[in-house]
Amino acid sequence: MTPRPQIVIVGAGFGGLFAARTLANQAVDVIIIDRHNYHTFTPLLYQVATAGLDPSEIAYPVRAIFRHTPNVQPLMGEVEAIDTIGRRVIVQASGETRAIPYDYLILAAGSVSHHFGLATVAERSLGLKDLPEAVALRNHILRQFERAAWSDDPASRTAATTLVVVGGGPTGLETAGALHELVSRILEQEYSRLERPITARVILVEAADHLLAPYPAPLQQAALDQLRSLGVEVVLGDPVVEAGADAIRLKSGRVIPTRTLIWSAGVKASPLAVVLGVPLAPGGRVPVRPTLEVPGLPGVYVVGDMAYVEDERGPYPMVIPVAKQQGILAARNILRRIRGEQPQPFRYRDRGMMATLGRSRAVAWLYNRIPLRGYVAWVAWLVLHLLWLMGFRNRLNVLVNWVWNYFTYDRAVRIILEHNRAGRASPSRRTPIVPVEQAVEETEIQRIA
Amino acid sequence: MTPRPQIVIVGAGFGGLFAARTLANQAVDVIIIDRHNYHTFTPLLYQVATAGLDPSEIAYPVRAIFRHTPNVQPLMGEVEAIDTIGRRVIVQASGETRAIPYDYLILAAGSVSHHFGLATVAERSLGLKDLPEAVALRNHILRQFERAAWSDDPASRTAATTLVVVGGGPTGLETAGALHELVSRILEQEYSRLERPITARVILVEAADHLLAPYPAPLQQAALDQLRSLGVEVVLGDPVVEAGADAIRLKSGRVIPTRTLIWSAGVKASPLAVVLGVPLAPGGRVPVRPTLEVPGLPGVYVVGDMAYVEDERGPYPMVIPVAKQQGILAARNILRRIRGEQPQPFRYRDRGMMATLGRSRAVAWLYNRIPLRGYVAWVAWLVLHLLWLMGFRNRLNVLVNWVWNYFTYDRAVRIILEHNRAGRASPSRRTPIVPVEQAVEETEIQRIA
Repeated sequence: MTPRPQIVIVGAGFGGLFAARTLANQAVDVIIIDRHNYHTFTPLLYQVATAGLDPSEIAYPVRAIFRHTPNVQPLMGEVEAIDTIGRRVIVQASGETRAIPYDYLILAAGSVSHHFGLATVAERSLGLKDLPEAVALRNHILRQFERAAWSDDPASRTAATTLVVVGGGPTGLETAGALHELVSRILEQEYSRLERPITARVILVEAADHLLAPYPAPLQQAALDQLRSLGVEVVLGDPVVEAGADAIRLKSGRVIPTRTLIWSAGVKASPLAVVLGVPLAPGGRVPVRPTLEVPGLPGVYVVGDMAYVEDERGPYPMVIPVAKQQGILAARNILRRIRGEQPQPFRYRDRGMMATLGRSRAVAWLYNRIPLRGYVAWVAWLVLHLLWLMGFRNRLNVLVNWVWNYFTYDRAVRIILEHNRAGRASPSRRTPIVPVEQAVEETEIQRIA
Repeated sequence: MTPRPQIVIVGAGFGGLFAARTLANQAVDVIIIDRHNYHTFTPLLYQVATAGLDPSEIAYPVRAIFRHTPNVQPLMGEVEAIDTIGRRVIVQASGETRAIPYDYLILAAGSVSHHFGLATVAERSLGLKDLPEAVALRNHILRQFERAAWSDDPASRTAATTLVVVGGGPTGLETAGALHELVSRILEQEYSRLERPITARVILVEAADHLLAPYPAPLQQAALDQLRSLGVEVVLGDPVVEAGADAIRLKSGRVIPTRTLIWSAGVKASPLAVVLGVPLAPGGRVPVRPTLEVPGLPGVYVVGDMAYVEDERGPYPMVIPVAKQQGILAARNILRRIRGEQPQPFRYRDRGMMATLGRSRAVAWLYNRIPLRGYVAWVAWLVLHLLWLMGFRNRLNVLVNWVWNYFTYDRAVRIILEHNRAGRASPSRRTPIVPVEQAVEETEIQRIA
């Protein structure tokens, strides 16, 4: 028996996952590598960050997806290098370095935050690109309110309760809307005390003069109006240039006191792109042929946010539908190559775009022809995302949470959960023996009411 | 207006929580301090560790519990010292040291794992005492199976897929039962490959000759039979004496290859007990009067696992009902003192005990008179725990998960979620540039099927 062709997929995001699904039960062996053991439903990351959903409700174990697909083997590990001459992917997995040979390779490692060279912003901002980041953001926000509730310094309270979201794209708008609901409906009440009321602010900062760049102007205006009607402060045409511990500075010189800078203003291709050793396109993306193959590297395909491919309107955007469709096409083109057929070029079936801005507020631009706004757009968003979420149990729990949150304005997942180091027991609680005299130096005496 | 008495409660477990509830809307000011911002429903921690429930489903924000109770203020922080002369609690909170004055103090900081001086066990075992530990255990177990799925070394695979639970109390039995179902119904299938099948073992080790020490012998035997019928291996009368990286050793000399040692064999009072400066009772507990006051420290009460108080049958056990009832009594006794009334002594209303051993298996000893076993006991356990869980939304989601798990044997929360450091953005993914020649040294070439 001749060995079957081995296909390695790097990344279990939408591009990699749909490539693997396309190759399921075909006469090939597939290894799908990801740093996590789960696929993340990234459109709802902002709901994890704003305490509306549990992490596992938007994460699905890769092994569960391919449980009945013996020709697809998941491997949890970090890709360290790609040997395009020896055709091997070098992976760190379970503390060992492994070389995984491939006949065909699909790179689908997605994108990372892009801070446009702003070092202080890169250092101090919180991202929203994966589940650990979303949980870290949730913990961070709740910590700020804990701090504000007990601080005697008004300036410190203001910085702790001012939340800044940077970026006027769908993620920025969704995050700002959900944050505003969280703070105005829950946190302000729970953290306020009679003598120390908490008033929080959510500020959205966008460098351009309008939100949602690719939308037609009336929908951009509708998004702006809906966001402001909610209570979100929107700053347009004034990019962030610097971030400090307690404040950020905009280009105009305006200073906003804040300890929470959420970055959703830009992404670039995963740094994994560099290991291919080919010249990169704008955004650090790998230029590929319309068939998604890398010129000069036979058998190597790049899809999704990492791939740079144009049609007559320019490069394809870094969005999920492009990644899904490219993942499927790359897999089909590999099967075509194996059968000796001609590969097909990528054609994007664009169904349009939508963004939600909080409770009952959304905009949509279906098929880039039909504009929707307000309640109708919001219901469409809800139904689509629910259908889209994989796995019956996940859908059911998300629905329970959404219905509950909608009617009660509650946010059940308001826990600050910090994890110990993996795979090792937590150290015992340290014995808290501090000489009393020393510990109380420089403290403030408090008494409530 | 004279200031109202200020009561500080340390710990938002069952003892502290029920004390605070008793003091809600009374003419006192209450500050309840906990390291976490949530109360943990500890009886279901093992279900988080075995991927059956999400952390937030058994955690409830303390501020949400006291949202409509302005005289109770939660403070998230670590108690560092107690100045019993100046009547102040010294707390590290939000990076600052604070001194919180008290007129009355209720110490309810619970217990920690007790390893009986076994240094290697303390270092290598995984606990199940709080939510971060439960999530760390879940991550650890899933990592072992990831490792086993790809390892070429049979000894390494065996150590990775052998899970040892130490302790024949309710937590040990519940954990062993749930683990066995997780590995036999889910992980063995998902991680097996044709040429490398995974066969996992779950071993329960107990130092005594029987399980569930306080139960009558027929119920101890019923628990043992049910556990073995499930497939759990039970080792009796042979305590763990040493733990290494890949194996543990029992007193008999028997060596069990394993990388997962789950410790539920013993607890002792929180080390916070030492800061009171009084001589401690067995288990590091603080001896208190029947009124729960500490002799010589007027106004200081200790409740729950930290408190040592006896009736004619000996010291009260470290269990939740005792903690709840003591928390309520301490609060009432403080109110009595304020009103100039006589405090009351503690009398335990003991409703009995129950332990579940996995699907449709349990034992119960209601009111220490009525024995139940098997399906009936299991249904009783299920209903009681569901009613007991606080908050409608938690109950609903837990029910959804339980029903789903029951019929499908699924475990939805099988994600390895490791968090970044709190309050700081995650570092950007490091650029994975490793010279290929160097990276592939000492690797093994793999090819599936």
